[in-house]
Amino acid sequence: MSGIVVSSRVRLARNYQDLPFRNRMSPQQAEECVERTLAALRDLPEAYHFRTLRGLDDVERKALVEAHLISPDLLGHGDKGAALIRQDEKISIMMNEEDHLRIQGFAKGENLPDAMENALSIDDTLQRHLAFAFDHQLGYLTACPTNIGTGMRASIMLHLPMLTLLKQMGKVNQLAAKLGLTIRGIYGEGSEAQGNLYQLSNQVTLGRTEREITEAVTAVAKQMAEMEKVFREKTVAKDALAFEDQLYRSYGLLSHARRMSVKEFMVHWSNLRLGAAMEMLPISPDDCDRLLTNAQPGHVQKAAGRTLEPREIDEKRSEMIRSALNGGT
Amino acid sequence: MSGIVVSSRVRLARNYQDLPFRNRMSPQQAEECVERTLAALRDLPEAYHFRTLRGLDDVERKALVEAHLISPDLLGHGDKGAALIRQDEKISIMMNEEDHLRIQGFAKGENLPDAMENALSIDDTLQRHLAFAFDHQLGYLTACPTNIGTGMRASIMLHLPMLTLLKQMGKVNQLAAKLGLTIRGIYGEGSEAQGNLYQLSNQVTLGRTEREITEAVTAVAKQMAEMEKVFREKTVAKDALAFEDQLYRSYGLLSHARRMSVKEFMVHWSNLRLGAAMEMLPISPDDCDRLLTNAQPGHVQKAAGRTLEPREIDEKRSEMIRSALNGGT
Repeated sequence: MSGIVVSSRVRLARNYQDLPFRNRMSPQQAEECVERTLAALRDLPEAYHFRTLRGLDDVERKALVEAHLISPDLLGHGDKGAALIRQDEKISIMMNEEDHLRIQGFAKGENLPDAMENALSIDDTLQRHLAFAFDHQLGYLTACPTNIGTGMRASIMLHLPMLTLLKQMGKVNQLAAKLGLTIRGIYGEGSEAQGNLYQLSNQVTLGRTEREITEAVTAVAKQMAEMEKVFREKTVAKDALAFEDQLYRSYGLLSHARRMSVKEFMVHWSNLRLGAAMEMLPISPDDCDRLLTNAQPGHVQKAAGRTLEPREIDEKRSEMIRSALNGGT
Repeated sequence: MSGIVVSSRVRLARNYQDLPFRNRMSPQQAEECVERTLAALRDLPEAYHFRTLRGLDDVERKALVEAHLISPDLLGHGDKGAALIRQDEKISIMMNEEDHLRIQGFAKGENLPDAMENALSIDDTLQRHLAFAFDHQLGYLTACPTNIGTGMRASIMLHLPMLTLLKQMGKVNQLAAKLGLTIRGIYGEGSEAQGNLYQLSNQVTLGRTEREITEAVTAVAKQMAEMEKVFREKTVAKDALAFEDQLYRSYGLLSHARRMSVKEFMVHWSNLRLGAAMEMLPISPDDCDRLLTNAQPGHVQKAAGRTLEPREIDEKRSEMIRSALNGGT
């Protein structure tokens, strides 16, 4: 299952009791939101970086979105947005997004408990100093009613190339919907899931405990991963060399091309990740996951230290990939 | 020019004066043709291999055709066909093809004089012992009137990927036709020139001396190679990295794929040969040319020592290519 589940994430929506919701907030109140949050978190033991939207150029913003450390939505909610990010990138607290706070906890692989613990540790620290908008009937109050209750979204990212190839995702979507869960592509616009990466998460935040939510998401993720595993094994059993051929062709292209778009990269990355998970290619799943982030346009430009033309991005991306795979010539 | 001209070949058609042409020959006379040829060539200083069609299985026949050491036509002219092949494969004498004898001389690169000398050395040796059908007005008499006169076909094989890509081959064909020359694809059926390999040769054997023929073919080959060179340089000047990208993608696929058809191989081989000729890939043109022959179906099966299923051929071909490029993993 470790080869199929990429990562786990928990997000908590929180709003300060004594401040109006974001849409009715004054600039001063938005600044107050940031200040009190930083003050309350001043004594966290680990190293954190503080970033304001105003202090970030386009490339840096893009790179943070690509790493899931800030949401695309944060960019759309005015210039008061900010984020406090733990150095190891396991925790990120966004300020002045749709809610006053969006606390994110991350964990590698299938591990919602760790991701939740990361997020709750911040929630606990804040609640020792500050009061959140909370109703004893409804739970946490949020800007959008869909988040009321736990204010929690638990999500698991899965790599499902075989379920995609064999057109099983419609069936999987139905299964998830029945259980109040939803599946979306990541890094993709519209219905197309680039890299065959999917995010499974809870749709409902009300009427279930945090633990019920993480357990439901984990159970369905396990089921999806099991299906994917069976299809992988069946496909290999049918014609192992055809399978290996497909993986190595992508490996050969990634390790030799001189100019590659992100769209083409995602196609070959999916084969790379598949081969890594099945121990059929000379690369680890972790290295694949690092490559995935580093090959995104913001990261490529951040590594170059400047804004690049689209063609330059494709060239620098290829350079980076070749050096990561270092079998390239 | 060495990067564009692959090889040179001269073929002489000869018939014994006292034997009827092939189509009216008895089996005994066909055997006599072989015997007297072998007897006359018994004392050649170099090592030769003698092969009879009857003694060759399908795989061996295919491999000899692929190496141009025997013609596809030899296989179609009954089971009396035979060939005497110099060990270094610079000379091949076919017996009982369309004519009694088809003497072939080969040379690397643009070198019709050497190829001609190779062929003529055999012709001279034979004429010291035996008499060929010859008319003082017409020259050598041949089974098909198109070969009468010198009985010579001089051909130069060229690799013309850029002229092909930029749709210049129509123009080039017209130029050749005006000068009594013809251009054909090799290893290809119909009009498609697999690997962008073309053979330029004389159409007319009568009314020109051997030297005039080789000079005309050489002159036009030089002109074609010069055109190809200019287009290569222009394309690199326009976008060197796009060019390099194309070459390295083919290199990456060739050095990593696990199953490759001959048709797909020819596409990537052309890029490999182009990159080798321009010193942009870590392989020499000579190694490319060896790979071209070794990747053909007959050679792949010959190396395996048995007849293979089509899918096995594609697998063994890939193994062979990877080991030849040895950057493959």
